[in-house]
Amino acid sequence: MQISELVQRADVPLATVKFYIREGLLPAGRATSATRADYDENHLARLRLIRSLTVVAGLPLNRVKKILDVIDHPKDSIYETLGTAIDALTGFLPGDQDPDRGCPRAEAALASLGSAYNASDDRMAAFVQLESALRAVEEVGMPADAARLRLYGDHVMAIARAEIDGMSTEDPQAAVQYAVLGTALYEPVLTAIRRLAHQNLAIGVQ
Amino acid sequence: MQISELVQRADVPLATVKFYIREGLLPAGRATSATRADYDENHLARLRLIRSLTVVAGLPLNRVKKILDVIDHPKDSIYETLGTAIDALTGFLPGDQDPDRGCPRAEAALASLGSAYNASDDRMAAFVQLESALRAVEEVGMPADAARLRLYGDHVMAIARAEIDGMSTEDPQAAVQYAVLGTALYEPVLTAIRRLAHQNLAIGVQ
Repeated sequence: MQISELVQRADVPLATVKFYIREGLLPAGRATSATRADYDENHLARLRLIRSLTVVAGLPLNRVKKILDVIDHPKDSIYETLGTAIDALTGFLPGDQDPDRGCPRAEAALASLGSAYNASDDRMAAFVQLESALRAVEEVGMPADAARLRLYGDHVMAIARAEIDGMSTEDPQAAVQYAVLGTALYEPVLTAIRRLAHQNLAIGVQ
Repeated sequence: MQISELVQRADVPLATVKFYIREGLLPAGRATSATRADYDENHLARLRLIRSLTVVAGLPLNRVKKILDVIDHPKDSIYETLGTAIDALTGFLPGDQDPDRGCPRAEAALASLGSAYNASDDRMAAFVQLESALRAVEEVGMPADAARLRLYGDHVMAIARAEIDGMSTEDPQAAVQYAVLGTALYEPVLTAIRRLAHQNLAIGVQ
């Protein structure tokens, strides 16, 4: 297809498509003349993927680049690959935390969540994210006691188990794409459902 | 306390504090001389609240302003107040959606979630957010079938019920602050726990 059709089907502006090609996020089309190039379904799929990660998941371009790189070049261990990709999702870097302060809230939280969360460690960006989020909750005087954490931990683990069960383990690249996209793209789905639940429940309170 | 102590205790740079005062997000201190002003615990609490909404919840300043305005001036109905505040959390505006397209995915999703989600309607920003998130999931070929949605809907409703149970209904302003902060600030907690759950479960897959 020509670039005009690609633009229309992906619902991404022409200038943005050209920018992605220049930045190396999207491969260039196959040149058919000095001024024309041909694009295929792989270009469309890639463009939709970039659009989802930027517009829906709200990720800045440097992190989208890192995630695409992980999908294109998975590491030997799926754990390591997934860890790198999930690290790229957060605004935090592993080791970002002031080492003198550590992550006392996240450590206590995972201890209270029990053995299912045992393997988590402070090299994970999500661990630093948890520390930061718990600190914010504490600072404005909202509860984050063991009961509240267990409520979250139990339900979230049940969701995560079902999500991971759907992951193919035969094709590592497909598995990583599923895992990364699943972590990133179902997050806004869950968030939206929780907000709708709050608004619905508030009707009963008034 | 002097502004230097406020800056230190809130862990927010002086220039940022002055900016918040100029923008009307933080009240000015009580002048004690031509060049000095006195700040109290209310200033500190407000500053931590702004910091949490911007840094942790990642909200842009115009939406933080709207949320503070809702907390300061709650409407008569807590449902309406909460709706306005949750609308301000999302990057979407109610009615943002192309009316010719509607929100078919969000409508189908809520229908499959059952009666607990019945009251949701397309005037809610979270409804448009759900449509957009489901469209992104669909476009990259990830599953969003009834079973997956029910998994999310059931667990999220259980979480939301427990969260709303903790809300005071006697003081409307406190209730709104609890609800808004709860929706915004526990979101990163839940997100971080889900990412840790994925990384932990991936260990078992490799």
